[in-house]
Amino acid sequence: MIRFVVIGHRAPTTGEFRLDDICGGAGRLDVLVRCINSTFFLSHDLRKDSEIYLVMQGGDDAPKTVRFYGPELRYLNPDERSTAALIRNALIKKVSTLECMSSPGVYISRMSLGELVNNLASRCEFVYLKEDGVDVRGYVFPENPCFILGDDKDLTEEEENKISSHLCSKISVGPLSLHADHCIIVVLNEMDRRCGLH
Amino acid sequence: MIRFVVIGHRAPTTGEFRLDDICGGAGRLDVLVRCINSTFFLSHDLRKDSEIYLVMQGGDDAPKTVRFYGPELRYLNPDERSTAALIRNALIKKVSTLECMSSPGVYISRMSLGELVNNLASRCEFVYLKEDGVDVRGYVFPENPCFILGDDKDLTEEEENKISSHLCSKISVGPLSLHADHCIIVVLNEMDRRCGLH
Repeated sequence: MIRFVVIGHRAPTTGEFRLDDICGGAGRLDVLVRCINSTFFLSHDLRKDSEIYLVMQGGDDAPKTVRFYGPELRYLNPDERSTAALIRNALIKKVSTLECMSSPGVYISRMSLGELVNNLASRCEFVYLKEDGVDVRGYVFPENPCFILGDDKDLTEEEENKISSHLCSKISVGPLSLHADHCIIVVLNEMDRRCGLH
Repeated sequence: MIRFVVIGHRAPTTGEFRLDDICGGAGRLDVLVRCINSTFFLSHDLRKDSEIYLVMQGGDDAPKTVRFYGPELRYLNPDERSTAALIRNALIKKVSTLECMSSPGVYISRMSLGELVNNLASRCEFVYLKEDGVDVRGYVFPENPCFILGDDKDLTEEEENKISSHLCSKISVGPLSLHADHCIIVVLNEMDRRCGLH
């Protein structure tokens, strides 16, 4: 399983946003939905061995974590609006302590970044995507990587500390600083090539 | 200048589509707007040395070609909806034989794929992105490449013939077949690395 965690610093935690304005009014939810697209879409196929966690830290009901789980995922289309609608369906669900499903392969919980990282630590190795990391092309991927990225904002020092308290590598995707969803494409392309498919 | 040509086989040529439904009702315009995003966006910056031509072949007023020209480009945001609105603004403009501007850096013309390719041939070398091409990592880029891609459909034999009548290389981006916008990311990442920035 290839996992991504994207931190939505101002991403909404209630369903009270307009699908017409996910870039402005919805705390840059557009960045997160593009990360979902990058995580799963192949040409006429889905990457079923992938999973992405969106840590939503904005709005009145923060934090919440929305999880898209490849093996079970249905009703995902590549466009931003319909993916934002899947997230909104998750956010309007009443959620107490346990994670619950809002549609096939889409889950919602009240996990914070700290809780999520502690929860995942036993199952995967964290790989933090950051400009000053080692080049992904020379990097030896762990068996169960969990790549961590910010949205349009870098991780805060406090957030970085939560990750670095666990075993964590730091990698970069190239000489220029890219959008989060573009970073995911470069990482997955590198992993595809390591599978010896080319 | 790095150029991309994306062929929108069913992409609209009138402004009569809804921004709420660019994936379904607008002939997969969503694919084209994501290609624009990939062509230009860096983290907190734009690739001003890039240009993309969208060859729109659907609807009642086909063909039309919408051109986004990096050096002059303004009002481009990364989300799909606002980019689709820029395209719609171009499509509702009255256009006769000459190309005309609809907003800074966005141009519209009645060029067909054949005319566009003939027009570009003296200024750049075509590079066709296709699964059976040579790996981009071993490919020596020409000085002024013009990468050609289909939208969610492959190029027809007739379209391929229009390109291959000119000097043309064929490259692939990796072992798996990717969405057009994801291919652009991989190509640009490879070009960034060749610039010796890393």
